[in-house]
Parts: sequence; C-alpha cells; structure tokens
Amino acid sequence: MNYRMVLYILGKVIGVEGFFLLAPAVCGIIYGQSFLPYFLWAASLCAISLLLCFKKPQQTEIHSRDGFISVALCWIVLSLLGAVPFLLTGEMNSFFDAFFEIVSGFTTTGASVVANVEGLSHASLLWRSLSQWLGGMGVLVFVLAVMPKADMKNARYMHLMRAEVPGPTVDKLVPKIAHTARVMYGIYLGLTVVEVVFLLFGGMDVFEALTHSFSTASTGGFGIKNTSIGGYSPYIQYVIATFMLLFGINLNIFYLLLTGHIFKALKSEEFWWYIGIAATAVVVIMLSIFGQYNGTEGAFRAAYFQVASIMTTSGFSTADFTKWPVLAQAMLVLLMFIGGSTGCTAGGIKVGRVLLLGKNAKREAGYLLHPNLVRSVKVDGRSVAAETIRGTTSFIIVYIIIFVISTLLLIAVESCDLVTGFTTVTTAINNVGPGLAAVGPASNFAHFTDFSKLLLCAVMLIGRLEIFPILILFSPSSWRR
Amino acid sequence: MNYRMVLYILGKVIGVEGFFLLAPAVCGIIYGQSFLPYFLWAASLCAISLLLCFKKPQQTEIHSRDGFISVALCWIVLSLLGAVPFLLTGEMNSFFDAFFEIVSGFTTTGASVVANVEGLSHASLLWRSLSQWLGGMGVLVFVLAVMPKADMKNARYMHLMRAEVPGPTVDKLVPKIAHTARVMYGIYLGLTVVEVVFLLFGGMDVFEALTHSFSTASTGGFGIKNTSIGGYSPYIQYVIATFMLLFGINLNIFYLLLTGHIFKALKSEEFWWYIGIAATAVVVIMLSIFGQYNGTEGAFRAAYFQVASIMTTSGFSTADFTKWPVLAQAMLVLLMFIGGSTGCTAGGIKVGRVLLLGKNAKREAGYLLHPNLVRSVKVDGRSVAAETIRGTTSFIIVYIIIFVISTLLLIAVESCDLVTGFTTVTTAINNVGPGLAAVGPASNFAHFTDFSKLLLCAVMLIGRLEIFPILILFSPSSWRR
Repeated sequence: MNYRMVLYILGKVIGVEGFFLLAPAVCGIIYGQSFLPYFLWAASLCAISLLLCFKKPQQTEIHSRDGFISVALCWIVLSLLGAVPFLLTGEMNSFFDAFFEIVSGFTTTGASVVANVEGLSHASLLWRSLSQWLGGMGVLVFVLAVMPKADMKNARYMHLMRAEVPGPTVDKLVPKIAHTARVMYGIYLGLTVVEVVFLLFGGMDVFEALTHSFSTASTGGFGIKNTSIGGYSPYIQYVIATFMLLFGINLNIFYLLLTGHIFKALKSEEFWWYIGIAATAVVVIMLSIFGQYNGTEGAFRAAYFQVASIMTTSGFSTADFTKWPVLAQAMLVLLMFIGGSTGCTAGGIKVGRVLLLGKNAKREAGYLLHPNLVRSVKVDGRSVAAETIRGTTSFIIVYIIIFVISTLLLIAVESCDLVTGFTTVTTAINNVGPGLAAVGPASNFAHFTDFSKLLLCAVMLIGRLEIFPILILFSPSSWRR
Repeated sequence: MNYRMVLYILGKVIGVEGFFLLAPAVCGIIYGQSFLPYFLWAASLCAISLLLCFKKPQQTEIHSRDGFISVALCWIVLSLLGAVPFLLTGEMNSFFDAFFEIVSGFTTTGASVVANVEGLSHASLLWRSLSQWLGGMGVLVFVLAVMPKADMKNARYMHLMRAEVPGPTVDKLVPKIAHTARVMYGIYLGLTVVEVVFLLFGGMDVFEALTHSFSTASTGGFGIKNTSIGGYSPYIQYVIATFMLLFGINLNIFYLLLTGHIFKALKSEEFWWYIGIAATAVVVIMLSIFGQYNGTEGAFRAAYFQVASIMTTSGFSTADFTKWPVLAQAMLVLLMFIGGSTGCTAGGIKVGRVLLLGKNAKREAGYLLHPNLVRSVKVDGRSVAAETIRGTTSFIIVYIIIFVISTLLLIAVESCDLVTGFTTVTTAINNVGPGLAAVGPASNFAHFTDFSKLLLCAVMLIGRLEIFPILILFSPSSWRR
C-alpha cells in the first residue's frame, strides 16, 4: 500500500472541500448572516490540505486496492469534515445529525434530519446543495479534472476514477483520463448553468435557482423549502422534473451529441430502456392516482415529477405519495431500485445493470434449451466481456446481502413497521431521499436513533460508491501486506 | 419435439394420480362418507392413462427441451384433474378455489382457500395431504421409481428428473437414474413412516398421523384443524417441528448415513449452513418474542416450530406470528426466501444456492483486489463448474423479475397493502403457505379474486418447478421447429 500517496490524495480532496466551503462563507456575507464559522473552517481545511500536499510523493503509482481504499477514505474524511460547519454555526447540536445530513448530501441521497429547512441559514442551505453537486460527479474526479497537465500520468489515476464513478464499466470518453474528467465536469457544469437560466426565467431568485440546480444536477434532492418543490409553479416543477431526467442520462450521450455523433448517441440501448421505463411508470402511476387529482394535467404533472425524482434517485417531491394508491407506491419503490443510467449522477442499481442482467438471464435460459449453442450477451451491438457480467451479478448479490442485513438491523433497533424498515434502507442504499410510511416525503429522518443514523450513513456511502470501496476499506485482508 | 413420448409420459402421470386417488376413496368408505366421487374419478383417470399408454412410442428419446415441457405440462394437467374431486363432492363450488387448493397441494405450498378445514370430509382432507406428499418428491420421479427395469434406458429420463427435482444440480445418488429415484422415494417413505409412528405414540389417531406426516414429509403444511398444529400437545409440536427440519435436509445426507458414509455426510457445507441459519433464527426470534410468552419453554417452542415450519417452507403454525414483533416477522420473511436445502422437498431459493452465490460474490470481490489471481468457487472441497454458477445467478435474476412482476400485478388487482402484496407472492413463489398481514397463519386465501388465484397458482408452480420448465412451456421459441 502506498500510504504516502493515499495521504497526498486525501490532502487534495480536503483542499477541494475547503475551496468549496468558501461559497457558503461568501453567501453568509451577502445575506448578512454569520459567515465566520464557514470562513474559518474553509481556511482550516485549506491549511490542512497544504500541509498534506506540501511534498509530492516520489512514488505516485496507485494500484487497484489503493484506489478503492483512497476513495472510501476520502469520502469518510470528507463527510466528517463537512459536518463540522453545521455544528459551528449552532444550527445542529448533535454530531450524528450533522454527519447524517452531510453524508446524505455528498452521497446525493437528500434525506434530511432537519424538520424545518426554512429555518436554516442561507450559508448552510447552500452548503447542503453544494455538497450534493460535489458528491454527484465525485470529488476525486474533480481533483483529476483540475490537476495541472504536468502533474499526472494517466494510467495511475484510472483506478481512482473507476472506484468513484458509478456503473459496471467506466467509459473513457477521451483517451486521457484527466481530459475525461474535465469533459465530464464540463458537461455537468454546463447543464447546471442551463438549468439555472431556466429557473431564473421562471421567477426564482439567484439563490433559489443555484441551490435547486445544484441539487438537481447531482440528483440529490435537498430542497430549501419545507414543501420541497410543491410550493413552486407548474413551470418550475416541469423544468426541475425534466432536468432531473436529463441528469439521469449517461454523460456519454451528451458528449456524443456535443461532438456531433447523434446517430451513435441514439443507439444506446440503456437510454431507450431508461426512457421506456420512465414513460411506463408515468402512465401506470398517472392512471392509478387519477381519482386523487383534479384534471389530467395535475395527475400527469404529479406522476411525471415523482417518477423523474424517484427514478433518478433525486428525492425532490411535489406530492406526499404515501397517500397514493398502493400500486403507485409499489411502482415508485421499484424505480428506487432500478435507478438512473450508468455514468451519471443518479444512484440505484442502474438501468444498464438491470438490462445486462436481464439479457444474461435470457441467454442462460437459452442454454437450457440448446446447450451446445454458443451465444454472447450484446449491448449496443457489442459483446459484453464475461468479467463485466460476472462482476455485475456479484454486485447484485452483495447488494442484496447488505440490504437484508441493514434492514434487519434497522428493524431490530427501531422496532419500526416493515414498510418503514424496508423503504428506509431502500432509499438510503439507492441514494434516493424519501421512502414510504414513516420516511415519506412529508416526514424526515430525525426520529431515528444515533445508531440507526450511523448505519444509514454507512448504507448511503456503500450505495454511492457502489459497495466495493467501503467493503475493501473495512476488509482485514486488504490491510495484510 | 417428441409429442408421442410427451403424451406417453402424461399418461403415466395421470395413472399415478388415479392410483393415489383410490386412497381417499377407501378413506371415504372407512369413515362412512360419500366415496363415490373419488372412486369414479380415480377409475376415470386410470382409464385415460391406459388409453394414453396403450402403445409405447417407438422413439423414446427425450431431449432437454422435451423434458422441461413434459414436466411443466404434467404438473398443469395433474392439477387440473386433481381439482375435480373437490367439485364433485360439492365441498367447493368454484373451479378457481378447487384449482388453487390442489396447486397449493401439489406444489407443497399449503396455502388454503378453505376457512373451515374441519368441515371438509376425511376423504378430501386425505387427498389434500396426499397431493402434497406426491408433489413433494415429484410425480415424475415416482413414475421413474416404479418403472419396470426393462422399460428404461437411463440417460433418456435424466432430463425429466433434472426438471422436477429442486436444486442447482441433481446428484445421482447411484449410477442408474431409476435406481436413484427408487432410493429417493425409499428414504422419503421410510422417514414418513417413522414420523407416523412418533405421532401415533403422541396420541394421534391413524388418520391424523397419516395426514400430518404426508404434509410434513413434503414440507407442504396442509393441516386438518383450523388452528393448524396449535391445538396439539407440545410433544406433537416438537415431533412435527423436528421432522420438518429433517425433511429440509438434502436426501443425499440420509443416503450417505444409511450407507455408512457418516464422515462424508457431515462434510456437507450446505447442511451446516442450514443448521446454523435455523439456529440463529430460533435464537433471534426467541429473544424477540420472549415478552409475549410465559416462560422460556413456551417462547422456545414457538420460535423453534415457526422457524422449522417457515424455513423448510412447510407452513404449519402454532402461533399467529403476525402479532409478533416486527423483527421476528422480518426474520421469518427472510427464511421464506432462503428456504431449505437442495435435493429435498423444501422450497425457497435453497441454502445451497445462497451459499454458492455468496461464495461466488466473495471471489469476484477478490478479483477487484488481485485481478491476476485465479480462484475457483469450492463447495464441499470441490470446485463448482462455471456453468452451475452462471445458471444459479441467472436463476436468481429471473426469480427476482418474476417476483416483482407478480407482486405489482397482485397489488394492481387487489389494491391490498404493500405487506400483504409482498408476502403473498413471497409465500407463493417459495411454496411456504402463510405470509404476513392479510395472509397470516390465522387467515386464508379465499378473499382473493379469481384472477389473483390463477396468478398465484402460476407463481406456485413456477416456484415448485424452479422457474424454467414453466417459462419454457410458455415461451414461443420452444415451440418453433
């Protein structure tokens, strides 16, 4: 293990966090609120970063294991440090609450322990949304994106990116890894800016437009109103729903479109399945909730918004869907598991993985009928490597094991009802935000015990980093020489 | 497709059903009840069988596909014909009810639409229990077991057995397939007889001992009292619970023990996991329900009985566990999915499959750390074939897909609550019997619509035959030339 290099990377990441913390500090100044806690903490992190990165390690090689461990460690440290401002400003009294809130932010879950978000300072609201924006695309990817060219040899950092970017495979958009990171953040930033413009056009002020865009882009879902998006105009609701769906699409597709490869972009099977599943869900839910709404537009808008929000694992809401018919609720829970596309900020199992597993199962069933026929699983016309399929099936199995153990633990500790226990873990591991019953969109997570909050933090991190980095960090065999 | 041969096999199976139907007919005579419907129907089936098997096909070759289709077809026909006596005796008025009851019997589920089972005739009670006993080990396996030696070439029938016996692989206990079938039924019958003796010793009359032993051996769970086993003495409860656990063990182990290979029998990893999971569940549930029972023995007995019943997917009950703490209920639901061992009459995913998937996931996680290390998955010290692993993972994926679709359909049709919808499909696909909420041990399945009853019949058959035979029967590509 290259400890020096892991520390160096950690230093860089802490520096990025310090830099981003300046934004809430400035926001505090603008709104005439207490900005000192944010400013001091930002400065401290920058100082720590400089210390850790003072001397670059001579040996910069990073192996697969080091990559996973660095990513897991960075995310835990990032969350521990990111929770501090909430305590410094006095807006939260419990470390567990502050930690839960920021883990929910960085992992783009959007579950909150704050009952009255409108009572938070502008600085803290901005920090919540900003943590989602940073966590959405990945803080290490950010480090790679802003690294000076001379400072990197590409292959050395691929493992970092592989461990942080969601999906069974990481497509290098362009040959150089740093360039890929830059292109990804470029598209991400670009789409965020476009959304800001659309929201400003709809009558939001700059602060509202920025925070909501940060939380949409990251498919995070932290709102700044107690009613989430429910109090905004239909125009705003349509804009946010549509941008959530856009941010649930693989960034590859945008890259291909931007570089003029329209035909290639539209060939993506995952994209069409993503659209198809979303459309089906909207229709089923709209029919199911029709009686509860006045007119077609209202029912459509509610279905469209909630499907976009839940499938992309954002978690914004315009309706308390715990009051919807059970079929609609069951559909939403299913969407929580499916999630968005690979290679974007959305969580869940991902449409691409579901597609791959389905195709593979179909092939295996074919073997039963014709044992001697050799077939390969093809996605987008290309054969999928056997190790990708094996990795994906193992991912699902470990995912299920973690899900089951977490649910039993939560139910044991909380003595909550089955639906609450089941959907709390569902919403945490898939980084959605709201669940059903006691964790519905009109509720919050404050009522959980500290133990459960920590457990859910672990589940959220496991979900965001797609299981293995966290497992490897805590596996004794990783630390053997 | 060898249509002649499929019809021939169907004829044999119908003959077996006719033969077994003579038992309730005789029972009717003994108890002075109407025996004519059972007798006439038994005679009719024997006649149909003779007609279909009058001429043996010259071409007796059975391919993999034919095997699956024969098994699926046999089970559906068997159920359609087996439902008729309930209608003939006038004890049921609806075909859907009768069909549900007998499918629940043959698949060893044990879910019932009869609210007052004590109102059924002795003949019908015996037929319910007997259908479970026949379905438990498999009716085609029975045909193979009783086939005259000259009538078979071994390899030709392996596909039939593979499609009907649960588990990722079929161990041929002895080289010849017919001999294997005979050994299996021998052990099955032997253990059933031992249970009868134990139950008689506990004060049951012959009828009670027989019906309960049939339902225990098959891990079916049809009782003859409205309170299932709740009204019997602790001794009876312990006997039935212990035999349920015994019948949840791979028959291989009994064979090895009987042939003196004790050390080899105890080497089975699945066996120890099975015991370990059951023991853990008993402890957790006992601690969880302690407050609801007077004294340790009562709590232990309730936990022991319910764990044995649910994990082996039997479905007998001595307690209404829907009134237990949520943790205990969640544990039971988990046990429903895990199920018993491979190569026995229990349903569920099976401990062996869970073990295999867990080991495989662990190996794949190892690849992340050390990509160049070649490892194999070992169970009982032997490497598992790659195709077995691939087949098992695909099984799980298809299982999940069918589970999700069935649950959504059921909820859409019934508008029931989430827990009812989820656990109804859980209990049906895993062939357990009771679920939670509206399908708890104190309730029955009569309140479902006819559509849902048919759906659940399909789910039970899919669960019993482990998915693929039914899928292949209804897949258009199977019927292309």
